[in-house]
Amino acid sequence: MAAAPDLSPFLAACRGEEPSRAPIWFQRQAGRSLPEYRAARGTGSILEAIAQPEVAAEVTLQPVRRYGVDAAVLFSDIVVPVHAIGFGIDVVPGRGPVADRPFSSAADLDRLRPLEPEVDIPYVIETVRILAAELDPAVTPLLGFAGAPFTVASYLVEGGPSRTFAKVKALMHAEPDLWAQLVDRLADMAIAFTSAQVAAGAQAVQLFDSWAGSLSPKEYQRFALPATQKVFAALGDLGVPRILFGVGTGELLSLMATSGADVIGIDWRVPLDVAATRVTGLPVQGNLDPAIVLAGTELALGEARDVLRRGSAAPGHIFNLGHGVLPETDPAVLEAIVTMVHEEGLSLRAEGMHT
Amino acid sequence: MAAAPDLSPFLAACRGEEPSRAPIWFQRQAGRSLPEYRAARGTGSILEAIAQPEVAAEVTLQPVRRYGVDAAVLFSDIVVPVHAIGFGIDVVPGRGPVADRPFSSAADLDRLRPLEPEVDIPYVIETVRILAAELDPAVTPLLGFAGAPFTVASYLVEGGPSRTFAKVKALMHAEPDLWAQLVDRLADMAIAFTSAQVAAGAQAVQLFDSWAGSLSPKEYQRFALPATQKVFAALGDLGVPRILFGVGTGELLSLMATSGADVIGIDWRVPLDVAATRVTGLPVQGNLDPAIVLAGTELALGEARDVLRRGSAAPGHIFNLGHGVLPETDPAVLEAIVTMVHEEGLSLRAEGMHT
Repeated sequence: MAAAPDLSPFLAACRGEEPSRAPIWFQRQAGRSLPEYRAARGTGSILEAIAQPEVAAEVTLQPVRRYGVDAAVLFSDIVVPVHAIGFGIDVVPGRGPVADRPFSSAADLDRLRPLEPEVDIPYVIETVRILAAELDPAVTPLLGFAGAPFTVASYLVEGGPSRTFAKVKALMHAEPDLWAQLVDRLADMAIAFTSAQVAAGAQAVQLFDSWAGSLSPKEYQRFALPATQKVFAALGDLGVPRILFGVGTGELLSLMATSGADVIGIDWRVPLDVAATRVTGLPVQGNLDPAIVLAGTELALGEARDVLRRGSAAPGHIFNLGHGVLPETDPAVLEAIVTMVHEEGLSLRAEGMHT
Repeated sequence: MAAAPDLSPFLAACRGEEPSRAPIWFQRQAGRSLPEYRAARGTGSILEAIAQPEVAAEVTLQPVRRYGVDAAVLFSDIVVPVHAIGFGIDVVPGRGPVADRPFSSAADLDRLRPLEPEVDIPYVIETVRILAAELDPAVTPLLGFAGAPFTVASYLVEGGPSRTFAKVKALMHAEPDLWAQLVDRLADMAIAFTSAQVAAGAQAVQLFDSWAGSLSPKEYQRFALPATQKVFAALGDLGVPRILFGVGTGELLSLMATSGADVIGIDWRVPLDVAATRVTGLPVQGNLDPAIVLAGTELALGEARDVLRRGSAAPGHIFNLGHGVLPETDPAVLEAIVTMVHEEGLSLRAEGMHT
């Protein structure tokens, strides 16, 4: 591993180069666990807050200031593009994305016109520009993101969060051509959405395929992976690291490693040394269980150290949680984790390599 | 594999012996997808229906009559024992088990006295007796069941269904001694509950550790497996097959194979040929995705054939879904699957062995 003193620790690790310190950020680090977030956002819909660049930028910066994490993650939501083009979807507090008229037939394709970033989501571009001006890219790069086609489609078809994904699976199996058109449109939308973020200053992108783990490997390969591959292929020329993350993806990791992603995010179920054998050659991101953080600082630090040692099995490791920060999280515990990762991360990684 | 003409197909497969036909049953086969079930049960709480032996026996028999499945599974619920001893838990339609005063401290152990089956759940014993008299054990054995200690504990601690299992994880990590006492009591309860079912005529038992997949392998090994091992060890002398099932358990299968279970149930995420390599030497049960059943007969049959072929990698295979029957399931599709499994199952298994 070559040392990369000019790159931020986050970008160095994404590229499998040697970071100056072990990088860390938290999925959903900007969120309800922070009092300053609740104060800045008020009680309105998350989509309203995202549409206000000053608010969205402030909320993005809060965890950078408080924790000193190594990446700022754009305050946004995976349904922002489909909302912006008028599909008819909102994010209901405590429930999640809800579509009044779910996607159910070919006629609904007409409700999914291409995303024109400058017209449809000027506020996102403006937020990214504010952040790019505020952040020092050599220290804290801005991570943009989008939902992966399958996960966004699951909300459109189910009409809301689902435990069984019964409707979306019925559609993909019973009408594979219609399904292919649906995820292809969503792939184009993710490409336009993330490309606009990169053009405005984002230095890396993450695709959230949060619910991919509901699929069998055969289903993932046939119905989800191709559209994700299309997104990552289109982003290849931009030269920014591409991260792919989902929950419950243990059986899918070797397929996800063929998506074109540069880094694979791992949930807490698969120990990182095991995950490294499934995504051979790629850096990993993760994977402390967000629930462990609720068990107190001492326990969380012990588990975090174990994560750092196991992460040494991969050519690069960005420390993170295995899913988003839980709303009831005590920020002091996350703060202690950041301090520990920065102070001990590289030596724990070296220790892991020798055991 | 020795032929076992005297055993029912289900029991033969559980023992890794050659069944006279490929056995099949469906998790939650007695349930809301059947019109006769809705008619028999009415709109009351499931716990009320379970407390009426004639109703519970009738509901247990309905899918046996309709589908000709190879096992009758006792109509019951995993919270029946804790409900019966007065912990204060009910099953809320559309939501699941809900405890008014969740388990949170050592004082709550007093609310978990030992189960005395003849006193606390005479109705379950009576239901089993009715069924044992009705069913031909050489054709359709009765499968009893209980919740595994971890999964029952998760409801007691969370107070209801959970997505994150944050409270139960915080408790197990922060108070490991209290946690050990909790699951030990629940293990004793599961032993008493299933032993009473076997004494009254059940010929096999299944432990549902439905939410074990929320745990990391390390957590499962430390906090869930020991209590499950205790249950299965205690049941060993009864000489009935012991099945262990959970959802999202891909990373846990090799640990589950050390639980003392004779058969491991597999959800739809892990192809059975892969699962067989993780539970080496044990028969498997599963694992058609219940959502596929909603995509129509032809697709469901195609996937079911694939399951049968892959199941040949294990020394025995009981066909089942990878989780419970979904309420919106068309019984005609399940009927077609049963017919196909009975007609083609053994030859598809032979085919799978040669590829």
